[in-house]
Amino acid sequence: MIDVAFLGTLVRPADTAVVIDVLRATSTITLALASGYERVLVAGSIEQARALRADDRVLAGEVRCARAPGFDLGNSPEETLEPRGSELVLATTNGAPAIIAAAQVAGEVLAASLLNLEAVAARIGGGDVLLVCAGTDGHVSIEDVYLAGRLSALLDGERSDGAQIAEAVAAAYPTAQEALEASRGAIGLRREGLEADIAFCAQESIVDAVPRLARTADGVAVLEPAGAPAAASHSQPSM
Amino acid sequence: MIDVAFLGTLVRPADTAVVIDVLRATSTITLALASGYERVLVAGSIEQARALRADDRVLAGEVRCARAPGFDLGNSPEETLEPRGSELVLATTNGAPAIIAAAQVAGEVLAASLLNLEAVAARIGGGDVLLVCAGTDGHVSIEDVYLAGRLSALLDGERSDGAQIAEAVAAAYPTAQEALEASRGAIGLRREGLEADIAFCAQESIVDAVPRLARTADGVAVLEPAGAPAAASHSQPSM
Repeated sequence: MIDVAFLGTLVRPADTAVVIDVLRATSTITLALASGYERVLVAGSIEQARALRADDRVLAGEVRCARAPGFDLGNSPEETLEPRGSELVLATTNGAPAIIAAAQVAGEVLAASLLNLEAVAARIGGGDVLLVCAGTDGHVSIEDVYLAGRLSALLDGERSDGAQIAEAVAAAYPTAQEALEASRGAIGLRREGLEADIAFCAQESIVDAVPRLARTADGVAVLEPAGAPAAASHSQPSM
Repeated sequence: MIDVAFLGTLVRPADTAVVIDVLRATSTITLALASGYERVLVAGSIEQARALRADDRVLAGEVRCARAPGFDLGNSPEETLEPRGSELVLATTNGAPAIIAAAQVAGEVLAASLLNLEAVAARIGGGDVLLVCAGTDGHVSIEDVYLAGRLSALLDGERSDGAQIAEAVAAAYPTAQEALEASRGAIGLRREGLEADIAFCAQESIVDAVPRLARTADGVAVLEPAGAPAAASHSQPSM
């Protein structure tokens, strides 16, 4: 079954949970790993991220869309294009709890954005798939549901009502950019002069990196690039 | 702001909350009041409904789509067309908690179905409107989101991302019946030989009755036909 959780708080057990926070957490995580960061440590708050500061770690985080005081980067995906260390610490209020919640109940947790749309779809195996829309401060976000619908349309399997709803939303917008522009998240970004992030996050399948949850510790989720699916890499390590 | 709660558990404070459980609770409540029942007592379980039995009360409830043992009616709207008493007691597992939850936080609570679509839209004033999709056992239902989208499209005001999502779902189906047929709720009804209920609940704006929450007591919601909007009925009682 392919199903959609419209908010991070609605996560339920599944074989694979795919967390979606298009503007901008999972777009930034995707691009960071595609750009060469070895892993991304996802923290739920600025304070939690600050406590993770260490050599070779780059801190990224926003306060109302702007770079957090004392941080190296804001939350714009493009800022991760040239890694300044081996690990990115990302503070994100909506993405982090969704990933942590999924980690408690799902066999595998992936992070999806439009940037890695096709790579994520190719990575997802069969079984029970839950597409988790992080939303914004408890409110459902168009751009997350849009991507859930785009992903659902690429997968084989029976669709829940939620998946059918997401696919209807995906079909309602001629382009990804139009879906992102329609969201309230876009209003906030434009207000802060970050409209370039919207166009950047609307790019489809420009990288192959698929962030995969490696572990959680003290409320911090550690994501690393997924290798080949587990079964294949175990049985054919030399491939 | 026009917003949508995709599940009854996601209710938040609003001036007006409109509860939607198309298959079949709010369709049955609507038709019962349109047919002449003075009020509908909405209970959250068969046991709770049974405890409300009294003279002049008619008990309606289902166990897996079939009439509950010892009850007068099942949950098919058509069964309420000829009132057998002044009050209908309706046991409904998804609709009742959504109505009760809305009662805690909303200024006015209405119940909507396709049967009274235009009447509900006309009744809703301005302010903060929350369209509450009851869903099914914690899962989002297409038919409820479809009606939320139809209602949203008839209202004036700014739309949240949730309202835009619901309108996209409404626009995705050429007819209400197609939206209802696509849902998992329809699968259950067909399996129980109740496919006639789907066509019945898909009829649009065939009655003017708008169920309005009058009070709650011990987890039971009492709905009565809305008169003129409160302000008008107070200032002009003789109308």
